[in-house]
Amino acid sequence: MARRKQTILNDPIYGFISIQDGLILKLLDHPYFQRLGRIKQLGLTHLVYPGAYHTRLQHALGVTHLMGTAIEVLRSKKHDITKEEELAVTIAILLHDIGHGPFSHVLENTIVSNVTHEDLSDMFMGRLNEEFSGKLDLAIKIFANKYRKKFLHQLVASQLDMDRLDYLRRDSFFTGVAEGAISSDRIIKTLNIVDDNLVIDAKGIYSVENFLIARRLMYWQVYLHKTVIAAEYLLIKILERAKELGNQGTSLFATPALHYFLTRQPGKKAFGKDRKVLEMFAMLDDYDILASVKVWSQEGEPILKRLSANLVNRNLFHIELTDKPFSNNKIEKIRAKTAKAYKISAEEARYFVFTDIIGNSLYDRQSDKINILYRDGKMTDIAVASDHLNISVLSKRVEKHFLCCPKTMI
Amino acid sequence: MARRKQTILNDPIYGFISIQDGLILKLLDHPYFQRLGRIKQLGLTHLVYPGAYHTRLQHALGVTHLMGTAIEVLRSKKHDITKEEELAVTIAILLHDIGHGPFSHVLENTIVSNVTHEDLSDMFMGRLNEEFSGKLDLAIKIFANKYRKKFLHQLVASQLDMDRLDYLRRDSFFTGVAEGAISSDRIIKTLNIVDDNLVIDAKGIYSVENFLIARRLMYWQVYLHKTVIAAEYLLIKILERAKELGNQGTSLFATPALHYFLTRQPGKKAFGKDRKVLEMFAMLDDYDILASVKVWSQEGEPILKRLSANLVNRNLFHIELTDKPFSNNKIEKIRAKTAKAYKISAEEARYFVFTDIIGNSLYDRQSDKINILYRDGKMTDIAVASDHLNISVLSKRVEKHFLCCPKTMI
Amino acid sequence: MARRKQTILNDPIYGFISIQDGLILKLLDHPYFQRLGRIKQLGLTHLVYPGAYHTRLQHALGVTHLMGTAIEVLRSKKHDITKEEELAVTIAILLHDIGHGPFSHVLENTIVSNVTHEDLSDMFMGRLNEEFSGKLDLAIKIFANKYRKKFLHQLVASQLDMDRLDYLRRDSFFTGVAEGAISSDRIIKTLNIVDDNLVIDAKGIYSVENFLIARRLMYWQVYLHKTVIAAEYLLIKILERAKELGNQGTSLFATPALHYFLTRQPGKKAFGKDRKVLEMFAMLDDYDILASVKVWSQEGEPILKRLSANLVNRNLFHIELTDKPFSNNKIEKIRAKTAKAYKISAEEARYFVFTDIIGNSLYDRQSDKINILYRDGKMTDIAVASDHLNISVLSKRVEKHFLCCPKTMI
Amino acid sequence: MARRKQTILNDPIYGFISIQDGLILKLLDHPYFQRLGRIKQLGLTHLVYPGAYHTRLQHALGVTHLMGTAIEVLRSKKHDITKEEELAVTIAILLHDIGHGPFSHVLENTIVSNVTHEDLSDMFMGRLNEEFSGKLDLAIKIFANKYRKKFLHQLVASQLDMDRLDYLRRDSFFTGVAEGAISSDRIIKTLNIVDDNLVIDAKGIYSVENFLIARRLMYWQVYLHKTVIAAEYLLIKILERAKELGNQGTSLFATPALHYFLTRQPGKKAFGKDRKVLEMFAMLDDYDILASVKVWSQEGEPILKRLSANLVNRNLFHIELTDKPFSNNKIEKIRAKTAKAYKISAEEARYFVFTDIIGNSLYDRQSDKINILYRDGKMTDIAVASDHLNISVLSKRVEKHFLCCPKTMI
Repeated sequence: MARRKQTILNDPIYGFISIQDGLILKLLDHPYFQRLGRIKQLGLTHLVYPGAYHTRLQHALGVTHLMGTAIEVLRSKKHDITKEEELAVTIAILLHDIGHGPFSHVLENTIVSNVTHEDLSDMFMGRLNEEFSGKLDLAIKIFANKYRKKFLHQLVASQLDMDRLDYLRRDSFFTGVAEGAISSDRIIKTLNIVDDNLVIDAKGIYSVENFLIARRLMYWQVYLHKTVIAAEYLLIKILERAKELGNQGTSLFATPALHYFLTRQPGKKAFGKDRKVLEMFAMLDDYDILASVKVWSQEGEPILKRLSANLVNRNLFHIELTDKPFSNNKIEKIRAKTAKAYKISAEEARYFVFTDIIGNSLYDRQSDKINILYRDGKMTDIAVASDHLNISVLSKRVEKHFLCCPKTMI
Repeated sequence: MARRKQTILNDPIYGFISIQDGLILKLLDHPYFQRLGRIKQLGLTHLVYPGAYHTRLQHALGVTHLMGTAIEVLRSKKHDITKEEELAVTIAILLHDIGHGPFSHVLENTIVSNVTHEDLSDMFMGRLNEEFSGKLDLAIKIFANKYRKKFLHQLVASQLDMDRLDYLRRDSFFTGVAEGAISSDRIIKTLNIVDDNLVIDAKGIYSVENFLIARRLMYWQVYLHKTVIAAEYLLIKILERAKELGNQGTSLFATPALHYFLTRQPGKKAFGKDRKVLEMFAMLDDYDILASVKVWSQEGEPILKRLSANLVNRNLFHIELTDKPFSNNKIEKIRAKTAKAYKISAEEARYFVFTDIIGNSLYDRQSDKINILYRDGKMTDIAVASDHLNISVLSKRVEKHFLCCPKTMI
Repeated sequence: MARRKQTILNDPIYGFISIQDGLILKLLDHPYFQRLGRIKQLGLTHLVYPGAYHTRLQHALGVTHLMGTAIEVLRSKKHDITKEEELAVTIAILLHDIGHGPFSHVLENTIVSNVTHEDLSDMFMGRLNEEFSGKLDLAIKIFANKYRKKFLHQLVASQLDMDRLDYLRRDSFFTGVAEGAISSDRIIKTLNIVDDNLVIDAKGIYSVENFLIARRLMYWQVYLHKTVIAAEYLLIKILERAKELGNQGTSLFATPALHYFLTRQPGKKAFGKDRKVLEMFAMLDDYDILASVKVWSQEGEPILKRLSANLVNRNLFHIELTDKPFSNNKIEKIRAKTAKAYKISAEEARYFVFTDIIGNSLYDRQSDKINILYRDGKMTDIAVASDHLNISVLSKRVEKHFLCCPKTMI
Repeated sequence: MARRKQTILNDPIYGFISIQDGLILKLLDHPYFQRLGRIKQLGLTHLVYPGAYHTRLQHALGVTHLMGTAIEVLRSKKHDITKEEELAVTIAILLHDIGHGPFSHVLENTIVSNVTHEDLSDMFMGRLNEEFSGKLDLAIKIFANKYRKKFLHQLVASQLDMDRLDYLRRDSFFTGVAEGAISSDRIIKTLNIVDDNLVIDAKGIYSVENFLIARRLMYWQVYLHKTVIAAEYLLIKILERAKELGNQGTSLFATPALHYFLTRQPGKKAFGKDRKVLEMFAMLDDYDILASVKVWSQEGEPILKRLSANLVNRNLFHIELTDKPFSNNKIEKIRAKTAKAYKISAEEARYFVFTDIIGNSLYDRQSDKINILYRDGKMTDIAVASDHLNISVLSKRVEKHFLCCPKTMI
């Protein structure tokens, strides 16, 4: 079969993205990778920001492009990166999110049991490595931070990795929240390496500050936007209800891939024992979830039907955020009202009226420092170097309690 | 139930879009409208331009925004537009594409029989008008060009309607094809009315020329991009095969809504007789199509399975474009080779090897003139006014013959 | 003389800017206003950011455009603004910087004595008011904060006035410092009025935070960029030397307007006594300064010649910034070295080697609060409302000591 | 003296521009080059498009950046470009406009005699080559198209040279005329070389078409905008009058550099004989012209004073454009009216009332073909390859007659 020699893709943000390496072109064409084109980067966020339909595939192409730029910058500063390392770190970033399932922040604990998307990325990479006869060995080593040059891993996963540089800019672009825009160009131009660690040249300090502020704002204005939370929890409730009905023996429409996971919810062991489990996971994407929810919205069990119709028609929960927990009394009163109105039990009303906690450190998985390199060779953490920000405030975990209920029950 | 008093949406292109009228807010919340959020504006174009996931809902919001600007401009030029007319023309543009189904340029003749998306828009508007007790009467009149002020209809459907001004700019934005960008702002600023017809003030002539060129380029670079055509015809072949199998009595997985249309393919009469037909159509969107195709790609009849897997994994047809028809000889040779390789009949090989014609006037439904208004009151058609373009060349229908076949069969 | 009925200007940032009022069109055409087109907004900043050639005229048009948007937003929130008030506040913002001279932050104390650009704006407005028979009365009242509706003045001069919203965005645009971009649109959409004070609706809190951060960054990255400071102080030294030579009776080339101010340096009194002083000031712009400096760079007294040539050929001072004062010892040593090298006296070496203090509150003239309005009607200062920023850190005056000397003397 | 090792500049269009070569850094610092920062790229166009203050220095940096990208693209397509050639072609493009004087399209025949800016560029490059001991030999050879690899010259001067790619995009950006935006990135990505000639890969055909259209539109909407023409001819008339007065022995204020050229108007011979002539030319820039005109607007001979005041205060000529010459009768009538009103002779009225011809091929100095390279190796001229444009229309010289006169005399 005739194979492409190179490909040039159009990205609305960076313009052209050229890909020339044969192995990377084969990875792009692989069904595991193509699947990312059926998974939206921001889940249900488009219900609030109608432009936010971009996919994980776009993000994967974006980080690959940024990695090329970063390597070029580091080499221009006389840091040695071999051809093999270049290929490996590029593959590592290309595949860093390969394990994400549909709506993954939402469904990680509904579809599978105690299997994170990082675990799944490991499994997919392992499977690809078999298929490509070990050519991904070094990429996997870098991804797992087991390669001796640590800075390569840091390009893939750290406070200032290509992942964050791309997703902040991309999410800002597609949501239209201009304040989230960061200057990925400028930050990358100031990357440097000291003692095998990624650092930022002193002239990049303002860009890093801007990056930290932009990230924080994006959390509250987009990722943790209360209406987005309301939509995500509605989807969680729908799947919980579907599973409960399944456990009770009710027969439900579901696409085969969704049916498989709803009825089994496999854990790590299951993935390990049977190669087919991962193959089935590779078939699961946004389309399974939303096509099934739409069917549920039309017929069958009333609670599942009502919840599903609410999602399909964007009739989202009312949501309140506060700094303190809601009183049981308040919650119970709304539940009782809801139970009465919908003619369901108080227990069942928990699908419609519930409370939980969100916090921005959910997304803040790494606590690595960002080191600033001065011309005289000294290094300082950004928290010290910055006279503009109170970084300690920025890095403090903020938690909010929220209460969801039907709009008509408040 | 508490209702929003106004809403402000974020659009990546125009920034904020404010919507304040209560009736329009209710239309936005209606399931018929929310459904547009599950139908991509550009069908399968994202397989070539990975950013092109924007939906018909976004476009509908965009045209509504532009209409507001156009009305403001026309009023500032002392043209009378009443409050009622403003609301009606805004509703008309908001709903102008409400009848589009999933992949509609592709599936219009597969899912339904001789029912265009314009017909379906009429039906949906009629249904909404019933639901809202006749409040859409004037909007429908304008949409159908039966209202005495013709220029209002022209804002909705003509050479320079809000539809085109938005979709060219939006499609350019999300594909990243910068050359397609048009200055919708500038064109709208130069709108005027003479004898109840929309015209362009002379100072807008360059923008109109740019618009015509940009439109033409977008056709060839995006709408009729040969790989996009290859993808669309692959989907057509998949659905043809699925229907054929259905007709032969083979049982196939399909979401309920898709199953309904695959087995019935209703015509206008059927829509007229049974209100349920339109309700079922309202349940059909991209998710039904792609979720079903994905299931077919995994199991069952080999031809359907192979075609479907090719779409899911983006293993698209090889496609050739020429100015002349392909010789039967060439086609038959490739069919024979394919039949042999795939162990299917020559007849069945038609699913994999076929030829057809595309042309840009497919999309060029209106032949209205664009009139340029000079300061002295004279008017000239752009084709005459422009000394830069040979408009006759631009408006000539261009046709191309194409041949599709598996990449390995050429 | 035929007069324009309206004008539409092209702004690289906002697109079209329409101006329709006859009085405003006359003000645009006035020599006092046209003069702003010969004064760069950012003085010598183009020596560091080569794109930063934008003029005070562009900024004046930009603020006028934003004012139109702000008035529309406030009216849509049911706040009453009469036609007269609209015109007056628009004139007030159009003319708010009319008193700026060339390189005004730099030359305010060299060209005139104890006359600020605000004083000069007052005088110009007064003169225009005479010329237009009192039609600027209300505009002047608003500008001077003597009109009963205080919020109108706040649109012209306060923490979130149109001035700052435009200059941050414009300076960011032309310097290419993307991090300084603020969402003026979004902030204006959230403007509101409570008790005759401008406030921000709660939903705008993130945009305000972004605005505060962006402003701070712009100070350090652009307005107080050390090379910009070095350039500005070089110009100060040039003019000090020219004045000293003038005082000594040396005859120097200068354009008539510059000659007038170099030899007189008029104070408020002088402006008050003789109408001609302001007329002469109205003739002074960037061209007088730079044309004269260029002549000085070619011939005549050696110190002035050397300083001037350094500016013309962008051979700027070496500059060091620290938190503490520089030791006299260090300064004296560099002065001695310079004196020897240039064959000048130690006293004269002060033109080449000097120290001073800069701080960002130089530019922070207003300490008004920014109040956030919550849906329940409560108001809180942004410093309290924000959980992201340590506003107290942000608002702290930061001072830096700097030392300038020739690059070859360090 | 400490020298920069590399420099990174911020460009509002391309972001960062890195310059690392030591010789190029020295050229950037040279007074001949710094002078370009005092010459606006678009002369008086800012009187119509208030954002258009960008300088020739910015353009020179822009083309240098594009050249870097072009070299990278060509090398990636396996075309050999040595380090020496890279440096030389980069210097050639950096300096390609070094010979421009202030308002050069306007003043080429007023300030000097039969010396084009290309001649002056040659002279400046020669002078720099002396100063840098022959290090510019190869750059000069390429610039003069005397080097054996012709494609290098074509990168500097041809239909698709870096010059045009930058100036169209830059002028579009700063004027805000969005339709002029071209995709320089995309065109450069499709550059290729066949038989030592620059060609465009077939996939770039739409971008080239867009480039041709955009260029045409920019001519009419910006470069030949009638108000810009009116402003430029006003400046021509001012300098003609000043020269006439000089010839008559009237003493006029002028900066030394302007005085030198006004009274001498040297030809090629003069430049050849005396090295000082070019040194004086190197001292002349926008500031000399506008500072002198401003002085003339205040005092002295009435015709010069009136013309100058009109420019300073943007009281431009009324201008009419037609396809045919204006009748002598019409012109004489306006001259008579003007002579009477201004109390001047009919002869003198020629400064205020005159006619001339403009045409877009003024700017169209090269008639080289643009060749399109197809995948099968065939090549076709764009005029043939394009089915969208009637290139013959596009390339036809368009001429317009215009008449200028005071606004009050029509």
